[in-house]
Amino acid sequence: MVTRMSRFFVRTLREDPADAEVPSHRLLVRAGYVRRAGPGIYSWLPLGLRVLRRIETIVREEMERIGSQEVSFPALLPKEPYEASGRWEEYGDNIFRLADRKGADMLLGPTHEEMFTLLVKDLYSSYKDLPLSIYQIQTKYRDEARPRAGLLRGREFVMKDSYSFDVDDDGLKRAYEAHREAYIRIFDRLGLDYVIVQAVSGAMGGSASEEFLATADNGEDTYVRSPGGYAANVEAVTTVAPAPLSDDAIAALPAAHVEDTPDTPTIETLVAAANERFARDDRPWGAHDTLKNVVMWVRQPDGSREILVVGLPGDREVDLKRLEAQLAPGEIEAFEDGDFASHPALVRGYIGPQVLGEDSESGIRYLVDPRIAAGTAWITGANEPGKHVFDLVFGRDFTADGTIEAAEVRAGDPAPDGSGPLELARGIEMGHIFQLGRKYADALGLEVLDENGKLVTVTMGSYGVGVSRAVAAIVENSHDEAGIVWPAEVAPFDVHLVATGKDPAIFDAAASLADDLAAAGLEVLYDDRPKVSPGVKFKDAELIGVPTIVVVGRGLAEGVVEVKDRRSGTRENIALDDAVATVKVRTARG
Amino acid sequence: MVTRMSRFFVRTLREDPADAEVPSHRLLVRAGYVRRAGPGIYSWLPLGLRVLRRIETIVREEMERIGSQEVSFPALLPKEPYEASGRWEEYGDNIFRLADRKGADMLLGPTHEEMFTLLVKDLYSSYKDLPLSIYQIQTKYRDEARPRAGLLRGREFVMKDSYSFDVDDDGLKRAYEAHREAYIRIFDRLGLDYVIVQAVSGAMGGSASEEFLATADNGEDTYVRSPGGYAANVEAVTTVAPAPLSDDAIAALPAAHVEDTPDTPTIETLVAAANERFARDDRPWGAHDTLKNVVMWVRQPDGSREILVVGLPGDREVDLKRLEAQLAPGEIEAFEDGDFASHPALVRGYIGPQVLGEDSESGIRYLVDPRIAAGTAWITGANEPGKHVFDLVFGRDFTADGTIEAAEVRAGDPAPDGSGPLELARGIEMGHIFQLGRKYADALGLEVLDENGKLVTVTMGSYGVGVSRAVAAIVENSHDEAGIVWPAEVAPFDVHLVATGKDPAIFDAAASLADDLAAAGLEVLYDDRPKVSPGVKFKDAELIGVPTIVVVGRGLAEGVVEVKDRRSGTRENIALDDAVATVKVRTARG
Repeated sequence: MVTRMSRFFVRTLREDPADAEVPSHRLLVRAGYVRRAGPGIYSWLPLGLRVLRRIETIVREEMERIGSQEVSFPALLPKEPYEASGRWEEYGDNIFRLADRKGADMLLGPTHEEMFTLLVKDLYSSYKDLPLSIYQIQTKYRDEARPRAGLLRGREFVMKDSYSFDVDDDGLKRAYEAHREAYIRIFDRLGLDYVIVQAVSGAMGGSASEEFLATADNGEDTYVRSPGGYAANVEAVTTVAPAPLSDDAIAALPAAHVEDTPDTPTIETLVAAANERFARDDRPWGAHDTLKNVVMWVRQPDGSREILVVGLPGDREVDLKRLEAQLAPGEIEAFEDGDFASHPALVRGYIGPQVLGEDSESGIRYLVDPRIAAGTAWITGANEPGKHVFDLVFGRDFTADGTIEAAEVRAGDPAPDGSGPLELARGIEMGHIFQLGRKYADALGLEVLDENGKLVTVTMGSYGVGVSRAVAAIVENSHDEAGIVWPAEVAPFDVHLVATGKDPAIFDAAASLADDLAAAGLEVLYDDRPKVSPGVKFKDAELIGVPTIVVVGRGLAEGVVEVKDRRSGTRENIALDDAVATVKVRTARG
Repeated sequence: MVTRMSRFFVRTLREDPADAEVPSHRLLVRAGYVRRAGPGIYSWLPLGLRVLRRIETIVREEMERIGSQEVSFPALLPKEPYEASGRWEEYGDNIFRLADRKGADMLLGPTHEEMFTLLVKDLYSSYKDLPLSIYQIQTKYRDEARPRAGLLRGREFVMKDSYSFDVDDDGLKRAYEAHREAYIRIFDRLGLDYVIVQAVSGAMGGSASEEFLATADNGEDTYVRSPGGYAANVEAVTTVAPAPLSDDAIAALPAAHVEDTPDTPTIETLVAAANERFARDDRPWGAHDTLKNVVMWVRQPDGSREILVVGLPGDREVDLKRLEAQLAPGEIEAFEDGDFASHPALVRGYIGPQVLGEDSESGIRYLVDPRIAAGTAWITGANEPGKHVFDLVFGRDFTADGTIEAAEVRAGDPAPDGSGPLELARGIEMGHIFQLGRKYADALGLEVLDENGKLVTVTMGSYGVGVSRAVAAIVENSHDEAGIVWPAEVAPFDVHLVATGKDPAIFDAAASLADDLAAAGLEVLYDDRPKVSPGVKFKDAELIGVPTIVVVGRGLAEGVVEVKDRRSGTRENIALDDAVATVKVRTARG
């Protein structure tokens, strides 16, 4: 097909949109791919829709290749299934809720685990029906607190979500592996730079889980990697704990002693005071020798809340995303002045672990960073204003109700698998695969008869690809100062043909070449605008980013056209007669 | 592609779903095309999605053919544009409204006039940019009071909506004609029996308008047609009024006279009393000689309301749909007992037109059926209990503030164009085209510079096709007792191949034939289920409705397979070697 620029519903902009924070947003709006319709809500212009459709096609082909079957669920959903799974409450403000004219509660689906589970329950009843993998490419909704970055974090977006259904764990693992391979093919074909990282499952429940992140300096997600190949999102990193000391070694450690430490409300002032008045011979005290105890409320979706104190080395901050991933679906709330007043066991600024723990008198839950291992000795609060305790040993002088991964991860921390020091990097979450297990099947009663005629609960996997987000992520990965540089497989057109000058013979030759290119099976964008200067046409072509640009201009007199590679910028004169063959070779898709 | 029934995500049902009111709902659920997800909300199974996609493809091809360009708008929309056009209020309970986490009002789009208008305003500024036609195929929402009939009237549905933008009325007419022709091609390709009827524009505003109705005895829409080719929906039918009499002729008519008519609260009792006590020589009185005056409130979207009295011949009922189409966006509310008490001019059961009209003392608005023409004489209320007036002549004894098309249309009524008596029929609205004019461009300020550098308001057309509804309408048009009979162009598969018996050679031959058919470019549904009886397989094939069914069974020993035409039921034995060629000819698409 030939699309003529003179009639094409597109306008490029010279100025960046005022609200654009990232290159993809800036370029997709300027080049006429999308337009903002509201906060976090975009309309697709013909250019944008072409890219979106090409991505959908790739996703569809790879899903079909692993035998997944396409279905399509409504976006507007009844509350009841989400209430049965607990997610109606868990999602809090993050979903759009509404009531219909009869007052029935409904939601705009953020993901469809419940609906897929119920559909399979409706249709299937025997182990012989399984395994099953079904998917949809569908519009989803999330009421983001801060919609930002254009298509990267919108409130209405297109996702591919798929679900696998198996009778046993081995089946689930096979389904998971098949999806993993399909995702590798998808993101390879999309031309993305990406990493696969270990992930915790978060609010979705379940066990094994990996994310596909497009690498991007301004990505929202932080992940870590090691020289030895370990990669994980920050929420999933586990801390390498020191080896615990034996009981005998612990007994040989110096006894704990309480010291006056006036005016030491912060870790810095405490360390300074310790070095001034209680100096050690071998090495100075550091923040890593102190144990700070952070107190907070944890609120559950049912509205109940309890106090939690988290103990961690004084040189580490709490990472809220890591902490919340551990506590989900619970959410953190601040512990206020009034809360201290009504809990006198917690002495603000001087909380020590001696009074904490579910078995202690206070009954307050106490979880510690894994670095707080048996035999480690700490300076920490003495539960009296102005006093700290030194040489307080874990496993001898205090204990905890368990460990928690709440501390920040830092560059240089050891990878949990021993593959070297961690490096921090940023990315955009493009895909997520995980082994859900039986959470939804249990909640909604999805059982089948097994070989022995016994009812067994089905085990599920859940797999997502951000389809509209991919449009933006590809641009983040692939652009330059002049505009977008599309990988051939997702480009809106195969070739951008530009006619320059005013000579009608040039326009005739270009129109005829456009037809020949289309006849060769290519999608052609033909810039036939009669009164637009070559400079503007070239600028528009670079901004729009079709990978192969053909210019019909003055060279026509010598029977040549110019073929330009958008990515490298290289130009080549080609005989007009060879143009179709040359372009066809260049635009061949992966 | 070959899809094997043994792994296909489908289950046919022997029983009709309890809530199915119409054949399409019953058959689409039983055959495994869709499943109910909530009231008026459906999930698409793979079979259903295949049909939906084929319909989308046809619509897309025909839209592209008339140069319309595809875009895609969000379904979740901000309130403001709909407030500017007045539709936020006009739609009343018929749209889904919601508030986001910040309390901003939003809606789920029922149609997108406002958004298209604003997008064109954003991109275009000159007459040279026009004409423009853009379309989307998108999910829409309406909070129907009574979602019913499966996909025929759902609350979430897929529509193609397109809009044309022109600088003048001639351009709009050309765009309208192009759409009209595209729609004819679309509905022809869908294999629908349909009629094109004149329509009034209703709540959408605008002027020329036609509907494409699929003929269906249980359709929701009533339309009329005449032997001479007139066709209109009931709302659009205009009444053939009698020729008005001259003033002289009117003056010569008998004078009006009030008569006691006790115990005549209904038209029937009044006519009986008239014939008993005031008999005419030439012919008996009939209900058509009486003028009844129906009183109601008309409430506007802004909440204001006024009284309206509608006068019509006593033998005609008010047709609420016709009346409301005339009064839109106003809505009718009942005139209650208390309202009569506070409006003594209106004597219940004996209202006469002498006291009505905006210029009368009561100031009450009075509109009459066009049959109430100058010189027509009536028996009507005398505005006193128990009394009627005879020979009350319109244009002499009373007047009105105008005419209104509020009376029911009946079979036998004359077509307004003189093409003969009307016949009533029922259909399903599949498409609607109309010349919107400048309503939205005015409301939202869509102007362009004309040739003289002057700002002119753009004129628009609006055009819709019910895409998901078409799936059901086609089934309504094309099914039999055994199941669905798909037209080839929209069938989920090109051929349904059934292997029968237990002989592995049969299954081998069938599998190989399936591959050969797929290699010839056909979409093949291959029923390879090993332990299912031929009877069940044939029943399923008839229910699912693929137009060509090929059976590989006992005939294989003689080298033949059976090719069956689903619609006619004819069967033919074909040499296995000729099967691909034969099937390919039979399944060739329009």
